[in-house]
Amino acid sequence: MTSPVSTDLSSDIPIEEFRALAHEVADWSADYLGGVGSLPVLPSVRPGDIRSVLPATPPVQGESLTDALSDFRDVIVPGLTHWNHPSFFGYFAMTGSGPGILGEMLAAALNVNAMVWRSSPSGTELEELTADWLRQLLGLPSSFDGVINDTASSSSLHALAAAREAAYPDVRNEGMFQQVHGRIYASEEAHSSIEKAALTLGFGRSGYQTIRTDEQLSMCSSTLRSVIQEDIASGLKPVAVVATLGTTSTTALDPVRKIAELAQEFDLWLHVDAAYGGPAAIIPELRELFDGWEIADSIVVNPHKWLFTPVDCSLLYCRRPEVLKRAFSIVPEYLRTPEIEAGRSLMDYGVALGRRFRAIKLWFVLRYFGQQGIIDRLRIHVELAQALASWVDSAPEWERVAPAPLSLVAFRFISEKLDADALDDANHRIMDRVNESGEAFITHTVVRGRTCLRVSIGNLKTTHAHVQRLWELLQEAAVHEGKVVLPPEVL
Amino acid sequence: MTSPVSTDLSSDIPIEEFRALAHEVADWSADYLGGVGSLPVLPSVRPGDIRSVLPATPPVQGESLTDALSDFRDVIVPGLTHWNHPSFFGYFAMTGSGPGILGEMLAAALNVNAMVWRSSPSGTELEELTADWLRQLLGLPSSFDGVINDTASSSSLHALAAAREAAYPDVRNEGMFQQVHGRIYASEEAHSSIEKAALTLGFGRSGYQTIRTDEQLSMCSSTLRSVIQEDIASGLKPVAVVATLGTTSTTALDPVRKIAELAQEFDLWLHVDAAYGGPAAIIPELRELFDGWEIADSIVVNPHKWLFTPVDCSLLYCRRPEVLKRAFSIVPEYLRTPEIEAGRSLMDYGVALGRRFRAIKLWFVLRYFGQQGIIDRLRIHVELAQALASWVDSAPEWERVAPAPLSLVAFRFISEKLDADALDDANHRIMDRVNESGEAFITHTVVRGRTCLRVSIGNLKTTHAHVQRLWELLQEAAVHEGKVVLPPEVL
Repeated sequence: MTSPVSTDLSSDIPIEEFRALAHEVADWSADYLGGVGSLPVLPSVRPGDIRSVLPATPPVQGESLTDALSDFRDVIVPGLTHWNHPSFFGYFAMTGSGPGILGEMLAAALNVNAMVWRSSPSGTELEELTADWLRQLLGLPSSFDGVINDTASSSSLHALAAAREAAYPDVRNEGMFQQVHGRIYASEEAHSSIEKAALTLGFGRSGYQTIRTDEQLSMCSSTLRSVIQEDIASGLKPVAVVATLGTTSTTALDPVRKIAELAQEFDLWLHVDAAYGGPAAIIPELRELFDGWEIADSIVVNPHKWLFTPVDCSLLYCRRPEVLKRAFSIVPEYLRTPEIEAGRSLMDYGVALGRRFRAIKLWFVLRYFGQQGIIDRLRIHVELAQALASWVDSAPEWERVAPAPLSLVAFRFISEKLDADALDDANHRIMDRVNESGEAFITHTVVRGRTCLRVSIGNLKTTHAHVQRLWELLQEAAVHEGKVVLPPEVL
Repeated sequence: MTSPVSTDLSSDIPIEEFRALAHEVADWSADYLGGVGSLPVLPSVRPGDIRSVLPATPPVQGESLTDALSDFRDVIVPGLTHWNHPSFFGYFAMTGSGPGILGEMLAAALNVNAMVWRSSPSGTELEELTADWLRQLLGLPSSFDGVINDTASSSSLHALAAAREAAYPDVRNEGMFQQVHGRIYASEEAHSSIEKAALTLGFGRSGYQTIRTDEQLSMCSSTLRSVIQEDIASGLKPVAVVATLGTTSTTALDPVRKIAELAQEFDLWLHVDAAYGGPAAIIPELRELFDGWEIADSIVVNPHKWLFTPVDCSLLYCRRPEVLKRAFSIVPEYLRTPEIEAGRSLMDYGVALGRRFRAIKLWFVLRYFGQQGIIDRLRIHVELAQALASWVDSAPEWERVAPAPLSLVAFRFISEKLDADALDDANHRIMDRVNESGEAFITHTVVRGRTCLRVSIGNLKTTHAHVQRLWELLQEAAVHEGKVVLPPEVL
């Protein structure tokens, strides 16, 4: 047998060239992480600016990676909003910590796929182990079974698919067409991913009912009860309720025990969205905020938010994994293996078949920081948020719009000289002014119809000085709005 | 203002310690990629082996990452099935190429999130640009708009959600409950992700109809026509048809132009699953195999399969992005930005809100290899598969069970001395024997009810010698089954 194929072609990049570039990337990454605090958080680019300086067509002949790395440094990085900046306070601030990044680098080199046990034995078992470690840290009972998904949007989709499976035993065969109209409940402050999941699963907006919140922005459980009772009286079928522990807008906490009791009384699936807030359950003095979540059917917690793990890494814990599996398991012949009974197939618990080795980064994070190290660090974020909340509370030209039980503060600039709409505009301008400084980045929300500012504290590099500087920037920006006189020590 | 917070705690890993470890990871990765060919492809571990040697509980105090890296090397890596091994021929063989790995490492360090343009301007625009580069390479018209998802399972779910949106204009509001029973069609050889998407979207198994295939394992378009007509006559609503270009079992190609014509005639959404096969359209002499896909409504192509990009990276191209957006766009107040009209929000085109910076790795791959380099390398894989197919065809104790138009060969051991069931068992044993050797890894499938072996060639390190050695291993294993006498030059 002689070879019909040319083997002259150097196929992948030569290994020593890869090694040299990997060292370059290692240095760049260390320099970036060490220096990101001196970059503008928000870049001063306009839509289209990045594309306009890059070639619109791919190269015919291959190029050197040195050129690609140059473009990366000179064009891509300056056009980024830096989530790793210690003064990134927008959305949910998060940290791609060093240990997590190293884990991600190793996962990239391995490039394995834990669809079935055989396709990645260590990948499957480390995911099980790491999910269980985090379960223990969160104080959840061992009846919860964890699987890593990409994002909370996927985790909640999977949870609500399991809820649908539980409510409509024939949905796998018959679909939704002839089913009794089902309803999924969540607070009016719930994350958009819950509504998106309801739409994806075929409930429609009419099958998704938001429940009003009380003055704490927590779901009003008595309203939930009335709505469920009215729905049943109207011939509708309550399917699931989603309780949020740490809403995106203000980190409000729904009364999960009361909701859990209602879920049990009316036989609803209870899904808890603790995507952001969940890690706070690791802190002993904050665990009481989570009281009742241990009887939920499913819980989502995102280590890529407030647990130092690079995106993407979302844990879905499910107390009824057999229902989740019934909703998703389809095993074609080409994926059957002898171990399919003994070793779990992670592909059975969600949409995705291909699965990155996400467990390594989380394992590294949990090992490097340890339980006590995580508690210490999360406590600092909570304390920084409490400090900011106290400054807001003591300043007459600012008001807090919601409790700050975790590490996010929601507040607004106020002035008797301005009407409500003008105040909304003023708050938007204050945000823009802070963000245009490049020194800090915040985002906004709307609470009870009015524009508010959100400051989320979740980056490991964020110190008291960064929060203090943000407070100065906010006050300086406010000067331009309400003719506020700054106290001399701030100027 | 004095600090109420201890800032003594060193928060993330010290930057110089990170740098040293990143260099260690760089070296390990280069050594691994250079030496993976000498490791057993399939590890000799049993379910539970890995977990049993790792601590069952997380550490209370943080540990050194040196220990974690040791466990990674000593416990995790030996328990992996090595997808990067040049003799990995299972599932779909793939390559985490050097350029792709470097891109992934940078993305991990950046840890940005392209939900809306503002949250990651470069992330958004590089994703648009790179998706467009690949579109050009594939020869698709500019009317196709690309978005990067994690996996083909997600891409196809999104595509069929758009199909549902197009078929039932009120589904976003009313859900599926009162809709006319809808039907999604795909060949009996279609990937399990298509059925999974149909179930997730609420069509149920009764809403998912497989179409029989012809002797080439291609969808029989005349059967598709009859089924559509019968369904319409029965009051059912044809919604979508999925054509596969490169089935998972044997890489069969559905007659996409004929299917496209039927889709137009009956107003169905046409989704093309070219997750594996798609990159072959970059090769000029193979593009004709894709004739007709340019009039599909949506197409999925996975660079993480046969385009040298580490998992996960799946491109969904859609000719009607406004429908896709209608199916998924929900913009809560906290994600509204001034650029929302000018800059595209990638979160609007699928389930996930959080989005890793997956474009970098694909951009590096396309730049490093270039169009010609990609063509050269894909051609080698096709040639290697043709070589193996020719060996199978000329050996009396083996038979091919399907055409091999791309880089996968499906075949089986045959013997007149064994009945059909015994032959199935023999083929399973042959596979196990090859896999237990640690020298190569193959997987099986079932074609027309009988067990067959699959050899997928898609790793950049795979050479003629690796395929030749696999062929020897197969023949040696066959000796134990049918008392086959090996030709002397093989032994």
